[in-house]
Amino acid sequence: MAKSKFEYVRNFETDDTCLRNCYIVVRLDGRNFHKFTEQHKFTKPNDIRALGLMSRSARSVMEELEDIVIAYGQSDEFSFVFKRTSTWFKRRASKLMTHVASQFSSSYVFYWKEFFGEDQPLLYPPSFDGRVVLYPSNRNLKDYLSWRQADCHVNNLYNTVFWTLVQRGGLTTVQAEERLKGTLAADKNEILFSEFNINYNAESPLLKKGTTLIWEKRDETVTKRMKLPNEEEREVAVTRSRRRVQAHHCDVIGEQFWEEHRDILEDDNC
Amino acid sequence: MAKSKFEYVRNFETDDTCLRNCYIVVRLDGRNFHKFTEQHKFTKPNDIRALGLMSRSARSVMEELEDIVIAYGQSDEFSFVFKRTSTWFKRRASKLMTHVASQFSSSYVFYWKEFFGEDQPLLYPPSFDGRVVLYPSNRNLKDYLSWRQADCHVNNLYNTVFWTLVQRGGLTTVQAEERLKGTLAADKNEILFSEFNINYNAESPLLKKGTTLIWEKRDETVTKRMKLPNEEEREVAVTRSRRRVQAHHCDVIGEQFWEEHRDILEDDNC
Amino acid sequence: MAKSKFEYVRNFETDDTCLRNCYIVVRLDGRNFHKFTEQHKFTKPNDIRALGLMSRSARSVMEELEDIVIAYGQSDEFSFVFKRTSTWFKRRASKLMTHVASQFSSSYVFYWKEFFGEDQPLLYPPSFDGRVVLYPSNRNLKDYLSWRQADCHVNNLYNTVFWTLVQRGGLTTVQAEERLKGTLAADKNEILFSEFNINYNAESPLLKKGTTLIWEKRDETVTKRMKLPNEEEREVAVTRSRRRVQAHHCDVIGEQFWEEHRDILEDDNC
Amino acid sequence: MAKSKFEYVRNFETDDTCLRNCYIVVRLDGRNFHKFTEQHKFTKPNDIRALGLMSRSARSVMEELEDIVIAYGQSDEFSFVFKRTSTWFKRRASKLMTHVASQFSSSYVFYWKEFFGEDQPLLYPPSFDGRVVLYPSNRNLKDYLSWRQADCHVNNLYNTVFWTLVQRGGLTTVQAEERLKGTLAADKNEILFSEFNINYNAESPLLKKGTTLIWEKRDETVTKRMKLPNEEEREVAVTRSRRRVQAHHCDVIGEQFWEEHRDILEDDNC
Repeated sequence: MAKSKFEYVRNFETDDTCLRNCYIVVRLDGRNFHKFTEQHKFTKPNDIRALGLMSRSARSVMEELEDIVIAYGQSDEFSFVFKRTSTWFKRRASKLMTHVASQFSSSYVFYWKEFFGEDQPLLYPPSFDGRVVLYPSNRNLKDYLSWRQADCHVNNLYNTVFWTLVQRGGLTTVQAEERLKGTLAADKNEILFSEFNINYNAESPLLKKGTTLIWEKRDETVTKRMKLPNEEEREVAVTRSRRRVQAHHCDVIGEQFWEEHRDILEDDNC
Repeated sequence: MAKSKFEYVRNFETDDTCLRNCYIVVRLDGRNFHKFTEQHKFTKPNDIRALGLMSRSARSVMEELEDIVIAYGQSDEFSFVFKRTSTWFKRRASKLMTHVASQFSSSYVFYWKEFFGEDQPLLYPPSFDGRVVLYPSNRNLKDYLSWRQADCHVNNLYNTVFWTLVQRGGLTTVQAEERLKGTLAADKNEILFSEFNINYNAESPLLKKGTTLIWEKRDETVTKRMKLPNEEEREVAVTRSRRRVQAHHCDVIGEQFWEEHRDILEDDNC
Repeated sequence: MAKSKFEYVRNFETDDTCLRNCYIVVRLDGRNFHKFTEQHKFTKPNDIRALGLMSRSARSVMEELEDIVIAYGQSDEFSFVFKRTSTWFKRRASKLMTHVASQFSSSYVFYWKEFFGEDQPLLYPPSFDGRVVLYPSNRNLKDYLSWRQADCHVNNLYNTVFWTLVQRGGLTTVQAEERLKGTLAADKNEILFSEFNINYNAESPLLKKGTTLIWEKRDETVTKRMKLPNEEEREVAVTRSRRRVQAHHCDVIGEQFWEEHRDILEDDNC
Repeated sequence: MAKSKFEYVRNFETDDTCLRNCYIVVRLDGRNFHKFTEQHKFTKPNDIRALGLMSRSARSVMEELEDIVIAYGQSDEFSFVFKRTSTWFKRRASKLMTHVASQFSSSYVFYWKEFFGEDQPLLYPPSFDGRVVLYPSNRNLKDYLSWRQADCHVNNLYNTVFWTLVQRGGLTTVQAEERLKGTLAADKNEILFSEFNINYNAESPLLKKGTTLIWEKRDETVTKRMKLPNEEEREVAVTRSRRRVQAHHCDVIGEQFWEEHRDILEDDNC
């Protein structure tokens, strides 16, 4: 078969290796999720089931791609950070981002029922688009995550007041939008507190801070059956260290989180 | 909230716009599908259910991304060709390939049961990786598709003889491999014919040629209830043209296919 | 010496291979040439010496880089077109454009005196910046050259009227600018003709059309001293074909030029 | 004029902005300098005039492009380092490297006579090719410069012994090459010392270490004529700080150089 005659087309592929010694961030965003959330009757302003499914899918990505050192998600987006020195897929941007997008999307469908049960079936396959961004320094990377968490805060405060005005205040969505035009964070907090007796600070950290996934080492004790030198068999307790993905809903803008988890980032001057 | 302070990180994103006036090909490949096919007991050498699911997922991608003019798949891979003049996602390579990878993967899980029924549940979410390649001329694009179809032929002939030797000839996989070492296409055809009375040419085109998906216009006649000028209502037959994704299992290496479907490719000198 | 310890830094270099089967255009533009032309007392609106030096330098580039099939220049810019199938420098964009920029710049200084003589010494080393653009089809490439020649025409007509108004009409530069605001090509032709009796169409093609450099084959007859079979020596006339860079100042927007020089461009469907 | 009709070709230009917060290194290498040095009778193993011209041309580049914080050269190559936060040419790689290549090349021809006098005229315009490499950390950048300086050392030691064997030892170039095959640095030092009484360590730092150009601030006292409050005029001595390019021939592999010039590099965690 004239295979070789066509094989020249391989040379049209171009190299997209990510610059060495930079953090590689892959961010996914839900496509047409406004429509998707309506058709699947997501509760407003936040649907806890949907946020759980996002985190579950992100965990599935981290378990497949071990060089991801931290992931951060909120609303219908999730960011995955590959360590500076990662050589996964020879650092080819296209492979990294499509693999993340693919694993996340198939997981989202696969685990749907675990979070939405039988009440709300998945009506059609959803999709996410992705991008790759490189960050050369620890400062840049922390600022990226801070940017996303600040975005989470701004959006969640807005959505919380908006839907409270609609659901409990009886306003139409147009009226609620009008009411909030030009208000600052302090104004929104005040509306919640004085009109609805809601203390925004007491809201769930999951909603205010989003979800941060990191690897954590745990000592596990398992029982193993072992053969002793005298040929006797006995059950022995064995302690071993295992890495697990752990979810946090804490502040990542300040330095405390990074001081408590010094092993996430590598040294800048390497 | 100090949102603006972090926003500078957006500028680290780089532009990956695809060169204008080139066909954009996104190819997906199954990841670790050797293991996946074993764990899900795919029949050898080909699992018709799995090929059907691949095509169904590819159709789902085409219906979401209308600028795809042709798609070609075989085994655990599928290639999608965006028309030269496409401006989807402003031709940004990352968006195009992640969207394709995501839509395909979520569809693969979503439609699994339609093809595998209750007998073979999906055990874990599979993944596909992708890449983007640009082709400047019609010749290059046809040669790309010919390359993939020639690859399909070579692999399918090999796999057909290999698994026939194992399943019907009683050889071990090691023996079958040894037997086929150094054989040419003619030798393999001869083994099939003289030892197992199989005429390879009579095998299913789906297996020999893979699957080509294109858009086809069909005239559909639908019945509509319309109000006449005299306020009377009557049922009227209305003919309208609809685009549908149609599957072919024919040769795309020769010119015939392209002559019969002249609207797929745009003129070179544009 | 600890050479190997540092050699890892080579891996930070990224690949910038130009897409195959596309024309590679390198365009150079003079840097701060407004100031440069004033300090070197270029005649206005055009300095024939300077245009000659630009062409001489461009020829020097073409003679060094034989895969350049056509070059086009006007004012302080020059574009060089590498053939589609060129493999110079493995099609690495950085190598191609820096080599062109370097050869052009050193030639500009080297040949300065040939064009400006002793009257106008070169006061400091000038510089040019460059860029690479790819064109997938013959239509695109011709349109690129047409774009530059249309730009030449528009600028030259404007400059011709502007400097005629200043030099012969006695206007200040501010008055001339004011006078030309909002005028169309026809208006400018009219000013030249009715006020200064200048027929713009009769102006030099060098100025109206710019300079197009292409390779041309010429038969040359040279005399060689050869030894005959009988050991006698005799002078023999030998005809050989030689490629030479030839300058044209003709229209490249219409099809005539391309029909007369069919060997410049390669076939689209290759 | 149908200018707009062609203007679409501008969109084929692609963005090549360098990743933020990385050092941008542009390295130039002489093209076909083996031939060039022979035709211009460069002295072996080093031609002091040629090295002076290289440095003079590099200084010309630094004075034009002020964001270059350090440059390092040896033999027929020179590297220029733009500061991390540079926004010259909007960090467009093509503009940066072609401008450097162009300025360097025109300077090389322009200053030739200053270094080679009337004895050795420049026979033809030489050229240099260039490339861009990004380095995310101070460690990476120092290692890049160390790599070049280690290369300088290795080559210069080899060339020194090689040409001593030829020029003073009477060996042919083939014999000298044979003699040096497989020798280590210590062996080469020993040959120089025991056979020719040359102490390599006492050789000129210019040759052993290459040339490092950095900016240095100097206080200059100039005399200015100033008007006093009582309208009297008087000459006044004014001290002002000026930046000048300064050449060094010292070690840049160890930390001492960097500790003495802390203002060259920016902080990593920025």
